[in-house]
Formats: sequence, structure tokens, C-alpha cells
Amino acid sequence: MAARKIGEFELISAIEALVAARPKSRGVRVGIGDDAAVLQTTSRSIVTTDALVEGVHFERHWLTPAQLGARAFRVASSDVAAMGGVARYVLLSLTIPEDMPIGDVRRCAEGLIADAEAASTSLVGGNISYGPVFSLTLTVVGAAGARVLTRSGARPGDSIVVTGTLGDAAAGVEQLLAGGRRSKLIDAYRRPPSRLAIAGRLARGSDVTAMLDLSDGLGRDLDHLCDSSGVSARVDLDAVPVSPSLRRYARAQGTGPLGYATRGEDYELLIAVGNGEAGLRRVARACKTSGVAMTVIGTLGAKISGARVRDSFERPIEGGWDHLRRRPSD
Amino acid sequence: MAARKIGEFELISAIEALVAARPKSRGVRVGIGDDAAVLQTTSRSIVTTDALVEGVHFERHWLTPAQLGARAFRVASSDVAAMGGVARYVLLSLTIPEDMPIGDVRRCAEGLIADAEAASTSLVGGNISYGPVFSLTLTVVGAAGARVLTRSGARPGDSIVVTGTLGDAAAGVEQLLAGGRRSKLIDAYRRPPSRLAIAGRLARGSDVTAMLDLSDGLGRDLDHLCDSSGVSARVDLDAVPVSPSLRRYARAQGTGPLGYATRGEDYELLIAVGNGEAGLRRVARACKTSGVAMTVIGTLGAKISGARVRDSFERPIEGGWDHLRRRPSD
Repeated sequence: MAARKIGEFELISAIEALVAARPKSRGVRVGIGDDAAVLQTTSRSIVTTDALVEGVHFERHWLTPAQLGARAFRVASSDVAAMGGVARYVLLSLTIPEDMPIGDVRRCAEGLIADAEAASTSLVGGNISYGPVFSLTLTVVGAAGARVLTRSGARPGDSIVVTGTLGDAAAGVEQLLAGGRRSKLIDAYRRPPSRLAIAGRLARGSDVTAMLDLSDGLGRDLDHLCDSSGVSARVDLDAVPVSPSLRRYARAQGTGPLGYATRGEDYELLIAVGNGEAGLRRVARACKTSGVAMTVIGTLGAKISGARVRDSFERPIEGGWDHLRRRPSD
Repeated sequence: MAARKIGEFELISAIEALVAARPKSRGVRVGIGDDAAVLQTTSRSIVTTDALVEGVHFERHWLTPAQLGARAFRVASSDVAAMGGVARYVLLSLTIPEDMPIGDVRRCAEGLIADAEAASTSLVGGNISYGPVFSLTLTVVGAAGARVLTRSGARPGDSIVVTGTLGDAAAGVEQLLAGGRRSKLIDAYRRPPSRLAIAGRLARGSDVTAMLDLSDGLGRDLDHLCDSSGVSARVDLDAVPVSPSLRRYARAQGTGPLGYATRGEDYELLIAVGNGEAGLRRVARACKTSGVAMTVIGTLGAKISGARVRDSFERPIEGGWDHLRRRPSD
């Protein structure tokens, strides 16, 4: 049945029923079904909102509704992870085209609920409207960890660390745009990593001085970090971690992998680590315990005039690093 | 300059600058500009999300961008009022068509910020995406009052009370659709009431047993109340408060005002009041102190089978009460 055949209230009831079928969540005093949710919160809450819009961030045939719901949760909660927080509650505002099958809306909500539940996060409210394209706007409410890790605490001398590998999702999008449907790179786009656990662990220590999630691309996000912290960065481009799949795909495209690694959509963590070698060792141990790969890709320096982010040869690396995509060599 | 000429980051910077120009808000530990906001919260937070979508909830020429921003805040925060809470923080997720003048986006944010500030509420975060139509999705984070007023606490014998007058906004939309641009009724649509103050006052007393905001229309919202509380309702239709402007307009349309009064968009409060005459007197006094009109429109009764909401002659009043619009007499 298409969305226009069924009212907003029936759709809300269907999603309410999905939530009601789950074990009652701790901390939810009033959940879906009243004017607003009433939630138990700590003294410092972390709140973020993020939207995925059809035709801009995804096409409906790129992923299943359940994958889309789960992806939306991972993308939105990534900002809570980046602050070192714990995601506790999520609200989902949907706009739905009138011709959209109602089963797809339900499966999308199911995918979101299941993925959120795996991170101990509960769907507590939302909104449904008709609209010309399918879009999901999520708000995640989290609890701050022992420390809040902003973008502004990094200092000269800190190491620059990233988790996981970069660029797979951006290459996956390129493959999807070219008609691809199955590959490891496409899987990376469909299912971004969840870094809530390692982020929470890092917030309990005192070695991380600044953290953000790699949503805009390494170049831009590192620029944000430098800007907020008043530092510069020197990056060893050869150290930027890329997967074998990406390396192969980039080679087949006659380009290098670094352009993909700086285009965004990675949702890995960009971390400034202080306390010298001892700090790095502790962060490496925390990552190992969480089963998360980490790589040191450079060092922060004093604020400089001009381009804040440079390579090992002191050459500026600009903006979105788009020119890197055209580097002929790997 | 149109939105497509300017990047997402520049737009975010422009809105950041608007927020930065305001006095620093209490409780905001980390505001716009980091991955997420870090907010001081109480042990019970009230959270709600709501969307206004161009072509569904508004047309851009119906109101100025500043009016639209303020309206969005009033519509979204109305759900916090309905729970008896205080709105503290708001997040704004925008989708913007590429041809939209950037000044309109800024003025819309300004309108929202100013109206929120008047309710001691701070814009603390958001998101900007391109999209086929303009849409605003707001999340309001509030603090619970002394009591949380849900939909489910009403009891047989409670009085049914509404604030303000009903139906002006729905008639205003009808006029806008017919090409009207200036009238009291259109003003009611453009600028819904803010009931946060009276709602907070009512939550401090113990006479209100249930409360919700009239967003879907008196018929539907009263049905929600009966459903959640397990009661029935008898409404004196002649008592439903309507403005002289609406009465005149409806007469000119050859219809009665009640159809408009049950179509929604009012954002007044629907209140169940217990403790008999003494309870009603105290609620009336609180409303008078807040400068808010209130009217008793009926009484709640025991749960009955069949239609839960009936008129004074025990005739069922169905769903959205759309048939009332066709009542020939006033």
C-alpha cells in the first residue's frame, strides 16, 4: 500500500507498534504517542541533528530501507561519538512521497530501531509528513562521558590519529552512481562504522585533546580541527590508511586512493592525541581493546599563516583535497 | 545570492554568526560549531521534533521568512508546552532549494532565534542540506515542570477546557489558498500563540489531569485524549470559543465557524481539569494571570463503546469533525 492510501496517524501507529514490541527502554518516562517524549537525562546532554535527503545523500535503489534506517542512525550518532558521548535516545522525522510503499517506511524504521538498540539507544519520538522526496532527519540525544571531546582542545605537538580506513564509502558512491550494486566499497557506504564504543572509552582517558568525526573528508575535517584549536597540521599522505579494495579500485580508475580518502562519508574518528609516546600507546591499547584499527597520520604544529594543513614536504593541502583525486600515482 | 552559489559551510557560518551576536545562553556548554551541542539538562528532559514542509504545511509567499522561522518555533515548542515543560534549546535542520535567496535563509533563522529567545530558548545546533523544497525540522529540548502533563491522566468528571479561540488559523489558510494576503485570520496562521508560560504555570498546580496542544483539530485531539485516558467526552458545541472575525468569515462563506474550529493549526491547549469547581476556579485564575482566555467546553465521562466524543444531545462527533463544516447554521 502506498503512503497516500494511509493516513499520518496510521503510519505513526505502525511505528509506535514497532517500538512497543521492544523491551521497555531504561530512562524513557514517556515515549512515542504523547505530545513529546519525557526522558531521564544527565546534567550534561549531547544533542545533534542530521538529515539524509533522497537525491542529495542517497537514492532509494542504493540500499534497502532497513539499511537506510540503520545508516541514518550511524551517521547521526557519529556526532555524539565524536564528542566522546553515549547515544541514549533518537527522534526520527520523516518526509514521505505519496507513492512510497508503506512497507518500506516500516522497514526503514525497523532498521533504525534495531541498529540503535545495538548501541543501547531508543527511538522515543518523531514526526511524519508528506514531501516530494524521502528524507530522514534524526536527532540524537546522548549523555556526555567523563570528558567532552570538542574540536578545540588540540595543541602543537599532538599526534593526528584516524580510526579505520578512509575512502571506501566515497568510492562506493562512485560505483553506485555508475550502476554498481555489490562490492566491498558499496558495503562501506551502506554500513558506516559505529565508533560510539571506542569514543566513549577514549573520553574516559586524558590523552585525547580533540576529536571529530570524518564526515566532510579528511582535508576539510582536519581544517576544522586546526581552525578550532588554533594549530597547524602536517600530514604524512603515505600514512593515510586505505583498504586494499580501494587501492585496487583506484588503480583501475587510473588514479590514487587519496582523493577518495578525503571526500567524506567515512564516519571514522579524527583524533588529536597528547602526552607524547605514552599517550599514543594508551590510545592504541584502547583501540585494540575495542577492535578498532588506528593509524598515526601526522603531527599538529603551531598556528601558521596561510594553509594550515600541509604534507610532509610542507606543501599546502587545500580544502576538500579534490586535486588529490587527480594524482596519477598511487 | 542564491543558495547554490554559497556552500553549506558558508551558510552554517552565517547562522553561527547570528547566534554569536546574541548574549551567551545559560546552560549551553558547547553550542553551534562543534560536532554536537553539549547542554546542561535536568534529570527529566522533554524532547520533541516537528517539521514544516513547503507545499505541504506552507507556501513561501504565505509569510515572510522571519514569520516562518518564528512560526516553526511556536509550532514545535507547543508540544513542550503541552507537557507542562519549559523550552530551553532548539535545533534547526533545514533543506534548501538551490534557487533560494540566501538572505531568506538568514532571515528565517533570525526570526526563529528572536522568537525562541523571547521564550528563553537558545538555538544550539542544526544541519543544512539542499533539497527540492524548503523545509524546517526543529527539535526542541525542554525541562519538565513540577509535574509532567501527559494525555493519559484525565478522569471521568473532569472538565474540558480550551485556551484562546479556535479556527482562525484554519480559516486563514483557506484565505491564503484563495489568494488573500492580509486579514486577522491570516495573522492567526502566521503567528500561532505561545502557550509555554501558562502551561508551565498549570504544571505547578495539581488541578490539570491531562493536557495536549490543539494541532490536529479539536475533534481529533479530544479523541486522542479520550483514547489515552480511557474516558469519553461530551462537548457543548455552542460553547466552543470562536473569534468575531471567524464568525463573520464563516457566515460570508455560508457555513458555521465550528468546521474551522476543528481543523487544526490552532496550537491552543486542550486541558482536562479535575478537583471540581475549585479546580476550575484555580485554572481560571492562572489563565487570567497569564492573560490567556479559557473556556469550559464540556465534561469527560466514563469510557463508552462506540464514538467517544459526543455533543450535548449525545450525538457522536466523528473524527476530524469535517461534516461540521457543512452545518448550514451558525
